[in-house]
Amino acid sequence: MSGNLGEFGRIERFFRPLAANFPGALGLTDDAALLSVPPGRELVVTTDAIVAGIHFLPSDAPGDVARKALRVNLSDLAAKGAKAAGFVLTLALPKGVGDDWLKAFARGLGADAKTYDCPLLGGDTVYTPGPVAISITAFGTLPKATMVKRSGARVGDHVIVTGTIGDAALGLKLRKERGATKRWKLDTTMRRHLLARYLVPNPRNALAEALRRNASAAMDVSDGLVGDLGKLCRASGVGADVDVARVPLSKAALAVLVADPKATETMLTGGDDFEVVATVPPRKLKSFLAAARRTGVPATGIGRITAARGARFLGPDGRPLRFVRTSFSHF
Amino acid sequence: MSGNLGEFGRIERFFRPLAANFPGALGLTDDAALLSVPPGRELVVTTDAIVAGIHFLPSDAPGDVARKALRVNLSDLAAKGAKAAGFVLTLALPKGVGDDWLKAFARGLGADAKTYDCPLLGGDTVYTPGPVAISITAFGTLPKATMVKRSGARVGDHVIVTGTIGDAALGLKLRKERGATKRWKLDTTMRRHLLARYLVPNPRNALAEALRRNASAAMDVSDGLVGDLGKLCRASGVGADVDVARVPLSKAALAVLVADPKATETMLTGGDDFEVVATVPPRKLKSFLAAARRTGVPATGIGRITAARGARFLGPDGRPLRFVRTSFSHF
Repeated sequence: MSGNLGEFGRIERFFRPLAANFPGALGLTDDAALLSVPPGRELVVTTDAIVAGIHFLPSDAPGDVARKALRVNLSDLAAKGAKAAGFVLTLALPKGVGDDWLKAFARGLGADAKTYDCPLLGGDTVYTPGPVAISITAFGTLPKATMVKRSGARVGDHVIVTGTIGDAALGLKLRKERGATKRWKLDTTMRRHLLARYLVPNPRNALAEALRRNASAAMDVSDGLVGDLGKLCRASGVGADVDVARVPLSKAALAVLVADPKATETMLTGGDDFEVVATVPPRKLKSFLAAARRTGVPATGIGRITAARGARFLGPDGRPLRFVRTSFSHF
Repeated sequence: MSGNLGEFGRIERFFRPLAANFPGALGLTDDAALLSVPPGRELVVTTDAIVAGIHFLPSDAPGDVARKALRVNLSDLAAKGAKAAGFVLTLALPKGVGDDWLKAFARGLGADAKTYDCPLLGGDTVYTPGPVAISITAFGTLPKATMVKRSGARVGDHVIVTGTIGDAALGLKLRKERGATKRWKLDTTMRRHLLARYLVPNPRNALAEALRRNASAAMDVSDGLVGDLGKLCRASGVGADVDVARVPLSKAALAVLVADPKATETMLTGGDDFEVVATVPPRKLKSFLAAARRTGVPATGIGRITAARGARFLGPDGRPLRFVRTSFSHF
């Protein structure tokens, strides 16, 4: 790590407290961090980056940016059934990022590190002539050979999603399109809900253990439910029939749908949900749903795995919806 | 990892072969990778990023850029005494990066992953409106509680550096300053040597085991020997007296020094050496040097650890040199 985090007084000052309770971080003063994996467990590693102007707006509150950067990684750990163990951070900063920004960023990051029991282990800070970019590699652990993969779905399994789908994509649209609030007839609460869902995801780490014990396959929904379930089906060599009417929507998303029925496509193919889509064998459904209830994470059955290839999203008439594009991509 | 590496056909095509021999990478088709840490060992984690226009030039060969990105991380693992175990990659790409660039990048990365026995485990690819940026998190393992820290140096220990110092800083100067080749009276071989040393570091992973068994402290020299040895001394609560005449220099660096004696400062405080500076207790010196010889990594004693605070670099007259700045920083 070249100790770069420790090189710059202000960064040291803001970030060192985040590593204080984890001995393996060595106070962020060494070139590397130490992580022990308990006997019988193995390490799950995931990495995700966010870039200003692409995954967040430069004007977003730095604490929210930090939370988003960490939470998109926590969401992957959750979907894999892993218990969070820590993370390392690369921060690419343009000139002119002030102390206030960094301080608020570190505060947001520290709060989430605490909430999700996922300490900062180390990092690197580099100068960039481009926009602020944050790359996080997060670690989790779980008993050996129990990671929930994308490839385990079997014909007949139930398709489950957590939370509600489409809010973040609508939130992004609200930010980009003046007049959308009016067109969609949203009240302040609904507008705020959708905006917040884009700004800061709500990763489902509370559900990790229940997924690990019951799910045959899972992934987090980051690039749109249609595309992501399609990936899970491809990895598993199966298909899925999803009943669109059963896809869980927030009150705000329902209001949008009433005003603009075409918004279905945005909701089902837009990105940034950071919910989990999982498949659960029928014999484990009851136990999974009971475990989900105990954690307080909403889990809804939306369809079944089929022997066909590809995920189909069936409309009220039982015919598959067609989408212009199935998956969100910044490219 | 949101499977982003797998999202884009061309990236999938170029990078998947790099992960083919490591089952835990799951063919780069899942959200996360799996890494097992053998019983009795623990994980060493390091992360370092490089940005076009800052750590390399946009016109550099993509294969060299990939090697540099991986090797700056391997260098940290080497200095800590860890055996490389794998890495994850975040690639931030501007629009217009072509297949040729990516293909050559992946080929360079794959060659080094093989050479250093450090497979690609996973990654994320994001679009950026800024320059190409590469962030790598690398993993190593070693027997529990044996990591070579910065903080272990004791009074009387020998200060050792590997390879030669200052080449990369001179190489960077050659690229930036027209006329430097002439002023320094360098022949083609010398010029090439210095340029190559900046372009692609030569991490000392072959020496990791010898360091782990013999060094009391170590770090890689990434921001200049003066500043980095200063950091090691601070972390250890000691000082160091270095005999500048003993600092190992390449033929090319010696030639520069003859033409421009002031270049000492560039060589001692410039960045990008990616050699190791280590401290070795007197009773282990012989065994360390013998082990180094067996690996073929040059190791040179340049001074001793003292009870004073701070690293002193003593000139031919025995008086400490003064430097305008002790450490390289992009900020």
